Amino acid sequence: MRFGVSMEADLLKAFDMLIERKGYTNRSEAIRDLVREKIIETQWQEGKSQTAGAVCLVYDHHVPDLATKLTHIQHEIGKQIISALHVHLDHRNCLEVIVLRGQANRLRQIADQLASTRGVKYGKLMMASTGRDLA
Amino acid sequence: MRFGVSMEADLLKAFDMLIERKGYTNRSEAIRDLVREKIIETQWQEGKSQTAGAVCLVYDHHVPDLATKLTHIQHEIGKQIISALHVHLDHRNCLEVIVLRGQANRLRQIADQLASTRGVKYGKLMMASTGRDLA
Amino acid sequence: MRFGVSMEADLLKAFDMLIERKGYTNRSEAIRDLVREKIIETQWQEGKSQTAGAVCLVYDHHVPDLATKLTHIQHEIGKQIISALHVHLDHRNCLEVIVLRGQANRLRQIADQLASTRGVKYGKLMMASTGRDLA
Amino acid sequence: MRFGVSMEADLLKAFDMLIERKGYTNRSEAIRDLVREKIIETQWQEGKSQTAGAVCLVYDHHVPDLATKLTHIQHEIGKQIISALHVHLDHRNCLEVIVLRGQANRLRQIADQLASTRGVKYGKLMMASTGRDLA
Repeated sequence: MRFGVSMEADLLKAFDMLIERKGYTNRSEAIRDLVREKIIETQWQEGKSQTAGAVCLVYDHHVPDLATKLTHIQHEIGKQIISALHVHLDHRNCLEVIVLRGQANRLRQIADQLASTRGVKYGKLMMASTGRDLA
Repeated sequence: MRFGVSMEADLLKAFDMLIERKGYTNRSEAIRDLVREKIIETQWQEGKSQTAGAVCLVYDHHVPDLATKLTHIQHEIGKQIISALHVHLDHRNCLEVIVLRGQANRLRQIADQLASTRGVKYGKLMMASTGRDLA
Repeated sequence: MRFGVSMEADLLKAFDMLIERKGYTNRSEAIRDLVREKIIETQWQEGKSQTAGAVCLVYDHHVPDLATKLTHIQHEIGKQIISALHVHLDHRNCLEVIVLRGQANRLRQIADQLASTRGVKYGKLMMASTGRDLA
Repeated sequence: MRFGVSMEADLLKAFDMLIERKGYTNRSEAIRDLVREKIIETQWQEGKSQTAGAVCLVYDHHVPDLATKLTHIQHEIGKQIISALHVHLDHRNCLEVIVLRGQANRLRQIADQLASTRGVKYGKLMMASTGRDLA
C-alpha cells in the first residue's frame, strides 16, 4: 500500500539527515519503523500483561505541598508502587524515580496521574520490557 | 513538500486505528509528529547539555558474573552515576534503575554500554527532560 | 579499677539472662563491652573522618507539609545527601532511607536535624563503618 | 540491687568523660541506660512483630563474585526484600542499603546472612522502630 505524506521542508531535511545517519535506505523504511514502534508501545501500554516499570518525575520542590501531594498519591495507589528513589538535582529540582509493578495499563494510568500533578515539570514512564513479543 | 510512503496493509490498518484513537485528522499529521519526536530525541541525546537521566535494566541474575560486571562498569564510570535502585522482580529477573547526571551525549554512551552488556535483556535510557527547548 | 553499680532487680534479671545467652563469663565483661561500644560510637560520630552513612526515618505522611519539609531540608543540606529511597510501608507510614557522605560529625548533625523534624516518629543514623579503627 | 564492676583505668576515664558530656549524674544511671537499651534491642530483634528495617552493607566490588552472590541471596530470600539502593562510594567500595519488611527475628537472620557473606567489610541492621513499646 502507498500513500502520500506532506511535511515542511525544514523537517524533511532534518529527517533525511537522521535517515542517513541511522543507515536507512529510504524514507518509507524509516517511517515504517517509527509507526511500528509507536503501535507496539501503545498496544503494550494498554494491555493487561504483568510488568514492571519506572516513572521518572522532575519537579520543583518549592511548589507548595507538591512533595506531600506526590507522597499521598503514592500511598493511595498502594501495592503497585514498590519504592521510590529521590535525587536532589539542584537547589530547586528533584528527580524522583518510582518503581512500579502490575498490569501494563494500570501502570500507564499511575504514570499519567503522577505526571499530571500540578507542578510536575516532566514525567515519563519507562516499561521494563518492550512488549515486542506482543507484536 | 510531499513524498510517497509504502507500508504493509496490516501495519497501515493498525496505524489508522491508532490515528483515530489519538485524534489526528490525517496520516501526515501523525507522521510529522513521530518524525519530530524522533529528531528532538536524537539531537538531544547527542548534545552536550547538562542533564539527569535514569537507565532501566532488566537482567537475569543467574547469568554468571553479570551482577559483578555491571557493578564494575558503574564504578569505572565514576562521577556521572549517582545511585542505583535494585528491585528483585522474581526468582530470575532483576530490575535495576541507575540514576545518572552529566552531559546528555555521555549519558547516552553510558546507557548503551550498560544495556549492551552480555546477559542484559532490556535496557533503556530515560532523560529527565525532553530537551524540547532545543527544538 | 572497681566500682559499684545499683540496678532494679527486674532489669538485673533480664541482664543476667542476656549475659548467659551471649556467652559472657561475668557482668563486668558484658558491661565493659557495652561501655566500649558506646565510647567508640560517640567518638566516631563526633570526629571529622570522611564517611558514608544512612539515616532511616519513619513518618506519617498525613502530617501536613511533612514530606515537603523533609524535601526542603535535604535540598538545603546539599552535597552531603546522595539520594533517598522511599518505601510506602502502609496507608499511613513512610520509611525513608537517606544516603549521606561527608564528615562524620556533619552527618551526625544532619541526622539529628531530620529526625527531630516535627512529625517524624523515628529517626536513626547508621554509619557505614564502625570507626573501630579509631579506638 | 548492687554489684561490683571492674574496668581498666583508661576505659573508666573515657567513660567518666562520656557521662559528664551526656549529663548523667552517676555511673549507675549511665550503665542502667546502656543495659536497658541492649535488652530492648535484643528482645525486639528476637521477636515476631511485623516491622521494616534497612541493612547497610559496605563491600569491595573487586572481590570475585561478591556482587553476584549478594544478588543471589537477595533473590532467594524473596518477599521480605523490598528494594536495594546502591551507591558507589569510591573506586573500590560500594554501599548497599537493603530495605526489608517482615518479622523482626527473620529480618535479623537476613541481615546476619548478608553481613557474614565473605568479602563484606561491614554490615548493620537498622530496625525502623525501637520496639520500645515492648519494653
